[in-house]
Amino acid sequence: MKIKELKRILEIKKLDCVLLLNTNSLETNPNMFYFTRYPGIGALVIPKKQNPFLIVPEMEYERAKKSIISKVYKMNKKKFFESIETIIKKNKVKTNNIAIDGSNLTLNLYKNFKKHFKKIKAKDVSQECLRLRETKNQKEIQFLKKSCDYANNILKKAINNLKSFKTEPEMASFLEYETKKLGLDVSFPPIVASGINSSIPHHEPKSKLKKGFCVIDFGVKYQGYCSDMTRTIYLGKPSKKEKDVYNFLLNIQKNTIQDIKLGDSCGKIYNNCVKSLKNYSEYFTHGLGHGVGAQIHELPNLNLNSKDNIQKNQVFTIEPGIYIPKKFGIRIEDTILMKPKPIILTKYPKDLLMV
Amino acid sequence: MKIKELKRILEIKKLDCVLLLNTNSLETNPNMFYFTRYPGIGALVIPKKQNPFLIVPEMEYERAKKSIISKVYKMNKKKFFESIETIIKKNKVKTNNIAIDGSNLTLNLYKNFKKHFKKIKAKDVSQECLRLRETKNQKEIQFLKKSCDYANNILKKAINNLKSFKTEPEMASFLEYETKKLGLDVSFPPIVASGINSSIPHHEPKSKLKKGFCVIDFGVKYQGYCSDMTRTIYLGKPSKKEKDVYNFLLNIQKNTIQDIKLGDSCGKIYNNCVKSLKNYSEYFTHGLGHGVGAQIHELPNLNLNSKDNIQKNQVFTIEPGIYIPKKFGIRIEDTILMKPKPIILTKYPKDLLMV
Repeated sequence: MKIKELKRILEIKKLDCVLLLNTNSLETNPNMFYFTRYPGIGALVIPKKQNPFLIVPEMEYERAKKSIISKVYKMNKKKFFESIETIIKKNKVKTNNIAIDGSNLTLNLYKNFKKHFKKIKAKDVSQECLRLRETKNQKEIQFLKKSCDYANNILKKAINNLKSFKTEPEMASFLEYETKKLGLDVSFPPIVASGINSSIPHHEPKSKLKKGFCVIDFGVKYQGYCSDMTRTIYLGKPSKKEKDVYNFLLNIQKNTIQDIKLGDSCGKIYNNCVKSLKNYSEYFTHGLGHGVGAQIHELPNLNLNSKDNIQKNQVFTIEPGIYIPKKFGIRIEDTILMKPKPIILTKYPKDLLMV
Repeated sequence: MKIKELKRILEIKKLDCVLLLNTNSLETNPNMFYFTRYPGIGALVIPKKQNPFLIVPEMEYERAKKSIISKVYKMNKKKFFESIETIIKKNKVKTNNIAIDGSNLTLNLYKNFKKHFKKIKAKDVSQECLRLRETKNQKEIQFLKKSCDYANNILKKAINNLKSFKTEPEMASFLEYETKKLGLDVSFPPIVASGINSSIPHHEPKSKLKKGFCVIDFGVKYQGYCSDMTRTIYLGKPSKKEKDVYNFLLNIQKNTIQDIKLGDSCGKIYNNCVKSLKNYSEYFTHGLGHGVGAQIHELPNLNLNSKDNIQKNQVFTIEPGIYIPKKFGIRIEDTILMKPKPIILTKYPKDLLMV
């Protein structure tokens, strides 16, 4: 998307071009996807001066032609780097100083690359790419809103069907099934953690649905853009103390969101939330939130010591939790779009639902 | 699993230990999983002399304790390499010459590693690990058999329910749903490619179910071990010519399997299959097969020019296909266990099913 901004970085860092690679048909290179909206195997070249171009295997050509990059070349997949070299030369792109993405490149692929591009100086720009992706443009916001709407509706459907699930995997796979039936994908394997399992933040669904709090963490990927939301419901009848803890956390979550202002320090937002958790703060064992976009974890970081700041058009989660070991856990999470004020995109109700 | 064999490789290559890493909570390092059966974040150290040990974040400790590695240490996730360094020192493991896995290590993680282990000489053993994983032990064969049984049963259920699906994503997501309801995972996103879409080997399910051939490529992961099978059915009534092409390919698939003998060259098996495809050989545009195990694509390679040989206890696919551009495609794929003779593990019938 922000190809102009990336070119400016090349200018400042005195680099000739960016070369992003993907050789794994089962994975997407998030930075390559960001600049192209093409998720497959291949190479993306963004020269400082000329227009960017994609080089893809023949079987991916049609899909790549539908991306936002208009110049697409076919490569011989078995001669991956030879093809790239030839096409780069044909386009007269300088490659003395080249920007690479060391976070989405295996050491062996890099070594292979260096065999073919011997005299090149490679410089990592993975952090710069992450920073470009931190604030979203109109198109991305549209995708993210839609992705949150889908997550809302599918979660609603699952909770309405709750009586038909006997196990955590049944409920988790229902969420996934309803997503994929629509030709969409989930942002990550859904978490359904019931009873004592809810005390484990990243519990993998595996057991029967147990009475007590049930944490449901779920998100949809629409046009490659992720939503992320968590609701905690109660299976059975909660005690007064359980209700109180839930409402205590819910208020903190709501207030934390409401208080977010442009320019705020993310580390400070985290600290304020921890303070408000009072005696429960020791039971809050993960970060307060993270950016979402083409990946489920992006910038900004809303964690201890984070130096990120709140900016317009960031999209991030706010997800405080309380996990009492071997007892229960509660997490409430929304995806937020930052405009002059924070806007909650995941609109599913948050009052404690007892089923 | 084959830790003894790995230690022998360390001996021969004069290396002090292996260090395998995973820092991504959404992915599994297949080699680390292979030696430990632990799929999460952390580090595995296999010293040449001492017993292997795992170093994992506190929240993964319980899961790691259930792995086949009995020695597990907790790390500070934010001080990933510092923790590893301290624990390695405590165990008095030499680290002058260290084996790493450059295929499952990003360039940036490697650079970070080198900052903490400055004087170390690192040597890539990713190919050696792949070779160790090529032949399976009894436990792995048991998992793979079970994984194929699940795939059979779930495919059967989907085909029995065929009338209820209007779209390719509906059928693909049903296969996934039935898998995940059981607390299992799919080996890869299922392919359902109907009508003209069947002519694209790696079509992503997206359209209505169209009349004509319908390629269904599906596999289950059980205890981390993958199955892989493809059946092509016919929606509607095939012409005589279509039936003939199907049966022509089916016979080739059956004969190819039947003819496999211990010691055979995999390149030769591929060549023989291509020869038997006669005029259709130009429409067979991918490899004939691949090993399966902890990953969906392992050794041996059954492709053009492959130098691999057939060995006892390999598990691999045989999947010839014919793809007539813009018309139709057919692929028939089984997962095979090699004993003195080849044994088909994916038992779903292969005669042309018309629905």
